[in-house]
Amino acid sequence: MSYDSTNVFAKILKGDLPCHKVYEDETALVMMDIFPQSRGHVLVIPKAASRNLLDADPATLSALMPLVQRVAKAVQAATSADGIRLAQFNEAPAGQTVFHLHLHVIPAYEGQSLGAHGGGKADDAELAGLAKDIAARL
Amino acid sequence: MSYDSTNVFAKILKGDLPCHKVYEDETALVMMDIFPQSRGHVLVIPKAASRNLLDADPATLSALMPLVQRVAKAVQAATSADGIRLAQFNEAPAGQTVFHLHLHVIPAYEGQSLGAHGGGKADDAELAGLAKDIAARL
Repeated sequence: MSYDSTNVFAKILKGDLPCHKVYEDETALVMMDIFPQSRGHVLVIPKAASRNLLDADPATLSALMPLVQRVAKAVQAATSADGIRLAQFNEAPAGQTVFHLHLHVIPAYEGQSLGAHGGGKADDAELAGLAKDIAARL
Repeated sequence: MSYDSTNVFAKILKGDLPCHKVYEDETALVMMDIFPQSRGHVLVIPKAASRNLLDADPATLSALMPLVQRVAKAVQAATSADGIRLAQFNEAPAGQTVFHLHLHVIPAYEGQSLGAHGGGKADDAELAGLAKDIAARL
C-alpha cells in the first residue's frame, strides 16, 4: 500500500482545503473532526507523509505521542468529558477512510454510547467554538 | 485519579499473575488479550506505572510507540488481518476497565464487524499459539 498525496488531509496540510484548526507545530496539525463521534472529537495529524501507522517513521510516532497526550488533556478540560478514547485505524477494513496517518481523540460522556461516525457533519460555528476552547487549554 | 498498584496488569508485570506473553523489554510487556475483540488482539503495556494516558510520563509514550508499530506489523503478519485498529481508553466512561495504561492492537478482518469485548474468554491453547506466531514476527 502506498501513499497518495491527493488525500484530503494532505490538501489540508498544504493549505488547499480549510479546517477548524486547534493547533499546529512542526510535527503535527490538530483539528476538529467535522463528522464527530462525540462533542469535541479532535484529529492529530502528523505532517510527515505516511499512509498510516504501518508505514510511518518511528521517530514521527515518538514525536507525536506527547502532543497527543497534551491534546487529550486539553480536550478533556475544554469539554468536561468523563473520559477520553484514542483510536487509530489502519486500512479500510479497520475503519480508515482518509489514507494519511491520523489519530482520533474522542471525548466520552457518562451515559452516552460512542457510535461510529454517524451523527453527520457538525455545525461549523460549534466546531469553531470548540477549536478555540481546546486551543486555549493547550 | 490516582494509580492503584493492585490492578491486574501491575500483578502480571510483577509476575504474580500469568499471561500469554508475546514480548518483553525494558519499556513494555506485550501480551494476548484474554477477552479478544478479534483473533490476535494484543495489549501493549508500559512497565512504568500510570493510570492511563492522562498521567503518563511523555517519555514513556515516546518510547512506547515504535514498539506499538512493530507489534501492529507483527500481528498483521501473523494473522493475515486486513487491517489493524489501535485503541486506548482513559477512565471508565471511555471503556477503561484496568487502570494501568495499555494500548489495544486489534486485527480487523474483511466482512467481520468489530464489537466490544463480548466473545468471552478465549481458548488458552489458541492464545498460546497466537502469542508464539506473533512473537516469531517481532
